[in-house]
Amino acid sequence: MYRILDRDSVPEYLMSLPNVVDVLGTTSNLVIDEIGDGNLNFVYRVTNGDEPGRSVILKQAVPYLRLAGEDWPLSRDRMTFEIRALQLYNELVPEFVPTIFHADEEMSALVMQNLSDHIILRLGMIDGVTYPKVATDIGVFMAETLFRTSAWGMDSEDRRQLMDRFTLNSELCKLTEDFIFTFPYMTHESNYESPETEAWADANLRNNAAYKLDVLRFKDLFVAKTDALLHADLHSGSLMVNQDETFVIDMEFAYFGPFGFDVGKIISNFILCCTAHHHLPGGAEYREWLLDQIVVIWDTFSARFRELWDQQGESAMLTAGLLSAEEDAQLKDAFMAQLLQESAGFAACSMARRTLGIAGVADIRDIEDPVVRSNLEIANLELSMLVMANRTNLSSIGDLLTLVRDFYSQRSLDS
Amino acid sequence: MYRILDRDSVPEYLMSLPNVVDVLGTTSNLVIDEIGDGNLNFVYRVTNGDEPGRSVILKQAVPYLRLAGEDWPLSRDRMTFEIRALQLYNELVPEFVPTIFHADEEMSALVMQNLSDHIILRLGMIDGVTYPKVATDIGVFMAETLFRTSAWGMDSEDRRQLMDRFTLNSELCKLTEDFIFTFPYMTHESNYESPETEAWADANLRNNAAYKLDVLRFKDLFVAKTDALLHADLHSGSLMVNQDETFVIDMEFAYFGPFGFDVGKIISNFILCCTAHHHLPGGAEYREWLLDQIVVIWDTFSARFRELWDQQGESAMLTAGLLSAEEDAQLKDAFMAQLLQESAGFAACSMARRTLGIAGVADIRDIEDPVVRSNLEIANLELSMLVMANRTNLSSIGDLLTLVRDFYSQRSLDS
Repeated sequence: MYRILDRDSVPEYLMSLPNVVDVLGTTSNLVIDEIGDGNLNFVYRVTNGDEPGRSVILKQAVPYLRLAGEDWPLSRDRMTFEIRALQLYNELVPEFVPTIFHADEEMSALVMQNLSDHIILRLGMIDGVTYPKVATDIGVFMAETLFRTSAWGMDSEDRRQLMDRFTLNSELCKLTEDFIFTFPYMTHESNYESPETEAWADANLRNNAAYKLDVLRFKDLFVAKTDALLHADLHSGSLMVNQDETFVIDMEFAYFGPFGFDVGKIISNFILCCTAHHHLPGGAEYREWLLDQIVVIWDTFSARFRELWDQQGESAMLTAGLLSAEEDAQLKDAFMAQLLQESAGFAACSMARRTLGIAGVADIRDIEDPVVRSNLEIANLELSMLVMANRTNLSSIGDLLTLVRDFYSQRSLDS
Repeated sequence: MYRILDRDSVPEYLMSLPNVVDVLGTTSNLVIDEIGDGNLNFVYRVTNGDEPGRSVILKQAVPYLRLAGEDWPLSRDRMTFEIRALQLYNELVPEFVPTIFHADEEMSALVMQNLSDHIILRLGMIDGVTYPKVATDIGVFMAETLFRTSAWGMDSEDRRQLMDRFTLNSELCKLTEDFIFTFPYMTHESNYESPETEAWADANLRNNAAYKLDVLRFKDLFVAKTDALLHADLHSGSLMVNQDETFVIDMEFAYFGPFGFDVGKIISNFILCCTAHHHLPGGAEYREWLLDQIVVIWDTFSARFRELWDQQGESAMLTAGLLSAEEDAQLKDAFMAQLLQESAGFAACSMARRTLGIAGVADIRDIEDPVVRSNLEIANLELSMLVMANRTNLSSIGDLLTLVRDFYSQRSLDS
């Protein structure tokens, strides 16, 4: 029966799970740290006090939005979808996701590998740390998970069976629909309070019909395109990294959506951080590293995606004997070009939402000087509008980078 | 427990259903006609021999594709989806669908209103009969069912709940993927044997990269866009009509797909019939009537769709306070323009499939003279390619009609 766990009840719960005892050992000396910095759930790191090398992560969903408190009910079902996604990712890309020790749909709880040598990528990036593998790892992760859960990489019926396991992740889809694709573009009580930025948005963004209609086009894709199983919250806070490894966490938003949403979201986080490093101490060199990573992410992603496609036999979308080799190459070129533009559009939405909406990025929000902060926020909004307006002219990832670099050089944000 | 019904067992089955007895009366004199001309199921018209005004239709799915026989297994689940769709349509548009007397998922059987005064639209159209209401009725039916099951007309969570009831109509989706979007465009044993037409297609259509890649774009939309609950087999054989009424039947293909698929499919059936009437006795006048109906269908559909949109309060896609009145009008214009182009693309696929694929239209296939028939088939393929290539230039339904009319006048098909 479901009950909310706390420091007092965590030990008994964990010690009742044989697979977890195998990892933690039997002990009455468990050290329990509540480490959840997320908005939705409780997350505990539990360590054997006698053998600190033995530890696990326990994540439990509560029946409300943790960020907002018990007044904002939110079904615990989200943990069911996180469990399903994490189990699938453990089959598809085990090297990039935590090992599961125990998955408990009834308790809406998940016990998994403690990534003790890794930190949240966002925090590392705010500190100006470079990670040599993160961009390629992200590219591979996205290519493997997106291609292999899509109609290009799956049989038609198998795909519908898989899709059926995620259709009802409705509440978290609704959060995205509201907080990424709706509220930031209008006056809404949930938006971030930053008077100058708000005033700029009212005067320049919220009255830009073309931009808002584009945002709605991408909302429609988010709502109604079911290309593949997305992580659907793939930002730099959902990645745990060190110099050697990259882990993807927090897949409670997982659902079938458009390819470009995962790709665009992660790209936008590198741009947002790049803007922040016009103030943060990383400076020009780190900004270049950040922008270079966008190229590496895309190049790795698109190369691996095409590789998987080349290796794929028949699938829902692929039929031997339908296309000549030349037509096949043409299809792939057109597909990847279209996906790049779609990713750029989603990146634009993500940049606006992270600036105007309730959930900002620490990269910017933690800057104390309101003048500096607002200046960077407005730059991010300008970038969002620039990328959105020019997305259909992008024929390579280089074009996107040129757009961003030219903007920064003309805008002279250096403080 | 499921068992396949036959003439001998139908009476006992029906007489065990109180709601059906209310309609038929209690009698041992039931007249049973097997009237299924479809490819999938058995359909019986059952009449009380003593009171011929009392009758019902009994439709049962068997665990194989009826057209192909027991060697082609096909799950009876399709009846579950037909029942669900028909029940929903009875709520949304009761005036356009048969009344349900009994729905039996276990028996994969449906007992419904006998439309004794109506004939299949396709047969009437082959005979050159005009129906004053059919085009407006089709337009209203599509607008009501498509808008009101979409993210524009539904709340986000309700929509996902509804979508969840249709996700697993996998086998019938797969039939469409194969037979509409794949096999006709390649050499495939299932294709129709019409040597001259095949030769033309090999030389002109199956080697046209741009066209085939467009077809694949529409296949991708069919597979992965979930705009609304579609009928998904809305051709002139799925409509029963007379001078006063229009009924939509055979919704076993129902699933969440792209708006334009229903719209394009029905439009294509009027074009195919128009081509046929260059040989059939309807002549120029009837051909004009057929083409005019396409305009009426579209105009009625788009006007009603916009009307429903205007009346809609908030929904997954609509948020009060987001758009100005001007932006809202702009969005609707762009949406309808895009939907017209999408519908044209799906119409193009449907025309090719009905010509080259296993399931033709009687309008053409029943023409005995192979030279005449092949001439018309090739014309339909040319039209398919013409519409596909020009779809993104269409800014009104008039543009589509001009394209078709110009083709006919230059091609001089009159025999």
